[in-house]
Amino acid sequence: MNIPGEIGMSLEELLTPCLVVDLDALERNIARMAAYAIGQGVGLRPHAKTHKSPDIALLQMAHGAVGVCCQKVSEAEAMVRGGVGDVLIANQVVHPRMLDRLARLAGEAAVGVCVDDAGNVDALSAAARRARSVIDVLVEIDVGAARCGVAPGNDAVALAKRVADAPGLRFAGVQGYQGSAQHVREFSRRRALVDKAIRDVRLTVEALDAVGLVPRVITGGGTGTYPLEGASGVYTELQCGSYVFMDADYQRVCSEGGRPLDAFDNSLFLLTTIMSKTRSGRAVCDAGLKAHSVDSGLPAVHEHHGIRYIQASDEHGVLEDPDDALRLRDRLKLIPGHCDPTVNLHDWLVGLRDGRVECLWPVAARGAVF
Amino acid sequence: MNIPGEIGMSLEELLTPCLVVDLDALERNIARMAAYAIGQGVGLRPHAKTHKSPDIALLQMAHGAVGVCCQKVSEAEAMVRGGVGDVLIANQVVHPRMLDRLARLAGEAAVGVCVDDAGNVDALSAAARRARSVIDVLVEIDVGAARCGVAPGNDAVALAKRVADAPGLRFAGVQGYQGSAQHVREFSRRRALVDKAIRDVRLTVEALDAVGLVPRVITGGGTGTYPLEGASGVYTELQCGSYVFMDADYQRVCSEGGRPLDAFDNSLFLLTTIMSKTRSGRAVCDAGLKAHSVDSGLPAVHEHHGIRYIQASDEHGVLEDPDDALRLRDRLKLIPGHCDPTVNLHDWLVGLRDGRVECLWPVAARGAVF
Repeated sequence: MNIPGEIGMSLEELLTPCLVVDLDALERNIARMAAYAIGQGVGLRPHAKTHKSPDIALLQMAHGAVGVCCQKVSEAEAMVRGGVGDVLIANQVVHPRMLDRLARLAGEAAVGVCVDDAGNVDALSAAARRARSVIDVLVEIDVGAARCGVAPGNDAVALAKRVADAPGLRFAGVQGYQGSAQHVREFSRRRALVDKAIRDVRLTVEALDAVGLVPRVITGGGTGTYPLEGASGVYTELQCGSYVFMDADYQRVCSEGGRPLDAFDNSLFLLTTIMSKTRSGRAVCDAGLKAHSVDSGLPAVHEHHGIRYIQASDEHGVLEDPDDALRLRDRLKLIPGHCDPTVNLHDWLVGLRDGRVECLWPVAARGAVF
Repeated sequence: MNIPGEIGMSLEELLTPCLVVDLDALERNIARMAAYAIGQGVGLRPHAKTHKSPDIALLQMAHGAVGVCCQKVSEAEAMVRGGVGDVLIANQVVHPRMLDRLARLAGEAAVGVCVDDAGNVDALSAAARRARSVIDVLVEIDVGAARCGVAPGNDAVALAKRVADAPGLRFAGVQGYQGSAQHVREFSRRRALVDKAIRDVRLTVEALDAVGLVPRVITGGGTGTYPLEGASGVYTELQCGSYVFMDADYQRVCSEGGRPLDAFDNSLFLLTTIMSKTRSGRAVCDAGLKAHSVDSGLPAVHEHHGIRYIQASDEHGVLEDPDDALRLRDRLKLIPGHCDPTVNLHDWLVGLRDGRVECLWPVAARGAVF
C-alpha cells in the first residue's frame, strides 16, 4: 500500500513524506568515487548500510566497485538476493542462528565477516563446517574508535592464526575502520586520527607478514576520511557509504573542515508537504521523527533560504517561515541530518530525473537488523 | 525473513536487536488506564501511533476503549484492516490521493479527521462526495502547542460552520491536544499549560453551543497530562498512547515531576546482545540507531545497575561496563528513550510471559507515513 508514487509521475503527485533521489547527483557521486578509487589503485567496496538497496549496489558495482559492505547478515542476505555477488559483513556476528545463516549465505556468494574474539572464531568455524561453506574472515583491530576490534599487533596476529587454523574459514585480512573520525569537523583532527589508524594497521600488517599470514584485504575508510586511507599505501579497500547520498551532517563536516567532501552532492532528499499554516512566522510539514532521524541534528531545508526546520515531533515538523512564504500543500525538500538511519525508516527510494519519477527502488534491507 | 523468533521460544533464543513486550505489564497498563477512564466517566481513545499494532488496539478496545487515534490515513487503514472499527485521524490530511483514501475508508469504518483550514474542509467534502461516504470532522484548535490548529473561539466556530454546511461531512467536535505539555518535567508547569488548554477548549465549546453547533466529541490529553483533561469536565475523550509501553523519557517526567506517571510500568524493551567485549570498562551491544530512536535521549539499561548506554552508532551501542560484568553474547533489556519512533523501526513485537514467547504481533502500521 505505502508506495509513494508511480513511474512517470511528477514531484507534485508523490505522496509525502517520501525519500527522493536526484539520479543525476547520485550518478555523479558514484562516478566520482569510482574514479578516485581507480586513480588511486585501491578497491572500492561501498557500505550498503547507507542505501540498503541492491539496485544502488549494482550501480556502484557497474562503476567498478568490488562488492559491498553490510553490517548485518540479514542485510547481506537482501543484497545477495538482489544480485550482489560479493559482500563483506564489516562487523561481528555472534548469535548461533545468524552464524548458520551467514555460513549458508557463503555457499551462495563470496561472503566475509569480521571477528575480534577467539570463541567467536570457533563458533564461526563450526557454522561453516555445518554448512560445508568457506567464509572469508577479517580480523578487526581497534584503530582508535574504542568500539569493536582487538588491539593492533600481537593480539591481532594471535586471532589471525586462530582463523587460519580453523576449518571452514579463510584468513582474508584486516579491518581498521576509524568510525569516530568520519564526522570530526576539523580536517587536521580527522587527519591526526586517521594517521594513527594507518600506523596501527601498518604495524599489524608487518606483524602478520612476519609470521607468514599475509593479509589479502586491508579495509577501512569512510566518506569523511577516505583520501587519507586511500593514499596510505596500506589499505587495499575503502568502505565509504554516505558519499552516494550525503546529508546535512556531512555538509557541516565539509563546510567547517574544508575538503574533501565538496566532491559530492546531496542526492537524497526528504520530500515533505505543508500540512498546516495557521499562524504568522510558522508552518507545519508532514515529516517528523517517523520520516527522518534526528540523531545528528535536524534536517536542512533545500533551496529555501530563510526557512528553517526547528522542531520535530512524531509526524510533524515545525518550520520557521519568517516571511510567511509557505502555503498549505506547498512542498519542500529536506536534506536529512543523517542519511543511513533516515533511509532505514522508508520502504521506497523514488528516483527522479528532470522532475519525473524514473524508478522506484525498494529499500530491500530496511529493518534488516539481525 | 526478519522475524526475531517463534512462539514458545525463550528470551535467549530470540534474534536481537528486537522489541519485546512484557505482557503482564502491558495488560496492567491497559487495565489501569481503562479503569481510570471508566471511573472518570470519560471516553478512552488510545493513540495507536505508539504501537502501530491492531492486536494491541483490539486489546485496548476489549477493555472499553471507544476506538483508536491515528496520525495518518495509511496508519488508519492498517488499523481497519486489522479489525478496528472506529478510528480518529487526530491530524490534518491534505494530499488529494490521501483524501480519497480517507473517504473510502470512511465507507468501511467510523472514521474521523481533524481540520484547521477552510480550503481543506472543501477538499475533504469533495472527496467524501466522490466516495459517497460520511466523514466525521473535528475542528482542531491550537491550545498552546503552536503546531496545528486554528485559534480558539471565533475562528473555530467559523470553521465548524463550514464543516457543518459541507456535504459528506459531519461536524463531530473539537480537538484540543497540548502536545508540548506532555514531557514537561515539572508537574506545576504541566498543570499550568493544560489549565490554559482547558480554558481555550471551554471557551470554544461555549461559542459553538451559542450558535447551535454542539460538539459531540472534545478530545485531547496524553500520558503526561491525562488526569488534568480527564477531570476537567470538558473533555469527552482522552488520546493517551504511550501509557501502554512507557519509555525512558516518560520515566524522567515521572521521577522529576512526581505523579501521575507512577501508575504505569515499562512494558516495552529492546532486547540486545553483547557483540564485542575487547576492553576493560566497556562493551558493545548490537542495538544502535537502526533499532531505537535517540530523539529523546539514549535508552536506559533495565535491571543492570552501573551499566550505562553511552553512545549509539548505526548498528552498535557502546556500554559503560565499569566492573566488566558483561561477557560476549550476554543479553540486556534496554528501555527505549522514546517508544513511538522506536516501534516504527521494527516489524515485530515479541510478547513475553514467564520468559517465553507467547505471541508475535506484526507492527502492521510500521512505515505508514502517508
